[in-house]
Amino acid sequence: MSAVSITDQFSFRLAATAGAARNGILRTPRGEIRTPAFMPVGTAGTVKAMLPETVRATGADVILGNTYHLMLRPGAERIARLGGLHTFMAWDGPILTDSGGFQVMSLAKLRKITEDGVAFQSHVDGANEFLSPERAMAIQRLLGSDIQMVLDECPAFPATEAQIESSLALSVRWAKRSKAAFGEQPGRACFGIVQGGVFAGLRRRSAEALIDIGFDGYAVGGLAVGEGQAVMFEVLDATVPLLPANRPRYLMGVGKPDDIVGAVLRGIDMFDCVLPTRSGRNGQAFTRTGTLSLRNARHADDASPLDAECRCPACRNFSRAYLHHVVKANEIIAAMLLTWHNLTYYQYLMAGLRDAIAAGTVESFAQSCARNWGAEADAPAD
Amino acid sequence: MSAVSITDQFSFRLAATAGAARNGILRTPRGEIRTPAFMPVGTAGTVKAMLPETVRATGADVILGNTYHLMLRPGAERIARLGGLHTFMAWDGPILTDSGGFQVMSLAKLRKITEDGVAFQSHVDGANEFLSPERAMAIQRLLGSDIQMVLDECPAFPATEAQIESSLALSVRWAKRSKAAFGEQPGRACFGIVQGGVFAGLRRRSAEALIDIGFDGYAVGGLAVGEGQAVMFEVLDATVPLLPANRPRYLMGVGKPDDIVGAVLRGIDMFDCVLPTRSGRNGQAFTRTGTLSLRNARHADDASPLDAECRCPACRNFSRAYLHHVVKANEIIAAMLLTWHNLTYYQYLMAGLRDAIAAGTVESFAQSCARNWGAEADAPAD
Repeated sequence: MSAVSITDQFSFRLAATAGAARNGILRTPRGEIRTPAFMPVGTAGTVKAMLPETVRATGADVILGNTYHLMLRPGAERIARLGGLHTFMAWDGPILTDSGGFQVMSLAKLRKITEDGVAFQSHVDGANEFLSPERAMAIQRLLGSDIQMVLDECPAFPATEAQIESSLALSVRWAKRSKAAFGEQPGRACFGIVQGGVFAGLRRRSAEALIDIGFDGYAVGGLAVGEGQAVMFEVLDATVPLLPANRPRYLMGVGKPDDIVGAVLRGIDMFDCVLPTRSGRNGQAFTRTGTLSLRNARHADDASPLDAECRCPACRNFSRAYLHHVVKANEIIAAMLLTWHNLTYYQYLMAGLRDAIAAGTVESFAQSCARNWGAEADAPAD
Repeated sequence: MSAVSITDQFSFRLAATAGAARNGILRTPRGEIRTPAFMPVGTAGTVKAMLPETVRATGADVILGNTYHLMLRPGAERIARLGGLHTFMAWDGPILTDSGGFQVMSLAKLRKITEDGVAFQSHVDGANEFLSPERAMAIQRLLGSDIQMVLDECPAFPATEAQIESSLALSVRWAKRSKAAFGEQPGRACFGIVQGGVFAGLRRRSAEALIDIGFDGYAVGGLAVGEGQAVMFEVLDATVPLLPANRPRYLMGVGKPDDIVGAVLRGIDMFDCVLPTRSGRNGQAFTRTGTLSLRNARHADDASPLDAECRCPACRNFSRAYLHHVVKANEIIAAMLLTWHNLTYYQYLMAGLRDAIAAGTVESFAQSCARNWGAEADAPAD
């Protein structure tokens, strides 16, 4: 399987496949992204409770930045004047930025969607703001993002087929404008986003329209919004086979470890999710043996490590009893250690998936993960 | 100047003096403490927003733990069962613990002081608690503290001479009981605490009574409670000369950089204060050029580092503009980076004082610090 050059400096090469699952390398001028890849979320110019070098130490090749948050504070033009997002936040690896569309829908006040774009009020200071496909791409260019996402409309869940169809048509028109606004940026990529809700026909229509426009990679959006894992997997089963094999595929905002494993088995290459970082700040840990709540009193006298096989500082240097104590006492170190652990666990899971795909053992790896997750659990995973 | 063995495994050696200022080494089984020393405060089993290895990386030889907080949560007996405070919090260097007396006065509810000790309600869960000299020392022994402080009564400021005199008499009786309760702990030390408020005669009475009991080191307590720097220095001028030259001297709860410099010039060897850590969580930075508030809008577009000469990660990798942004956005990394910087600055100051004492240039070092602190400042220091 030879490398597919997307641009001169940006390429995607599949190294191995196992069923629908793929092991590959996305090459960028800022470094390689081993796929399947998990991208820690660095919303406002920081992966919360982590330093850039510790994010790197967990095994992350790429992080995600949020256009919506950064445009409001500190502002895209300001970040550009300061040398771009990589310099600003001291992360020299690749950065993927979303377009702001999803956050406008979930965080902003007084939204008004027109053909031109979305007018909204900032959740930070109430200022009137406007996001169009052109502005979303301009912001991502100012940030210096390596992988830029088109602006799409993100309908609420649940929605009728007619609502999704209408939203989808707008998103396709915005995708065309986004691609045109992206223009030529050597070494950077522009990804389209397949929408269509839970409706296979609309997913097909969206995928075909985006492929017709032509993108460097294809994301699947509008999932993990409440439809449940079974429905999400059905949508992936119907959607992923429609996407070009020689382009990276990114499932946005997903997910729990078992969501990721299931999606990798269905041919997804890239993921992002706030779950490992947000859960880390809430005292929740993802481990080889299950999802644990360190707040639970059963850990108060437990001298054993969170995850005996994990090499992160939380597991190497501290006991469950200590983690319980600092979670209960709302100490910042609790967020620091549990975030570090959760990101380490997610990267361990991705590395395991990559190795298993290469070895042709990804199905048994997935079964083994699921078996082990049942060993202990004192909290639901979300 | 030869080493003074305090116990077989605990000694203090003065390496150089310059006027009243002293450069020395406190040797403990867990490592050497270079004096003058600043001890970061690790209240509840963590130096807030830091990992143990990063505390060490700032240059700290010793940290402080709070008996009051740890007795309430997670409990001294629990920490002992888990292997002691060093293991629990993953700090293998020396730990000094206070006796809990000061925090009982400032944090607990419904305090009642009798000859026996202090009854109070926990600020965590309202439980009825009791702290006596014997219990304070038992807790510090359970924690495995390397330097243990006597329980004293900490009167509010201001107080009349009669109030201080009465409090002082109780503190001396408690100091005797504390010393007896400390007993023999090879490799560990017990320090007395000179009280007496702002009254030179009472300071003398306290110092003489404590020297009569005999301690491994002597603290000066009851300062930095609102009396102001000039009065604090007057009290030090009256008190420090009374203390044995061959024992370490510890000024409790002090202070701002200029407080520390002034106290070192007056013969103090050890300090602790929440200021660098607490200020770090509040967006305030101590630098060679002054005390800065990163919240100030003048930093929003400033691409220069916080302190160009500092080698901490905040100064090496980030701009003032970034620090301003993460402070404004209440990101955890703001607390992490500014705490790291402030502790690095404090240790830089201590190292500078030690070197200057050894070189006989401590007066000019102090003048140079004071001059540089005036270069820029956008916030009061507390």
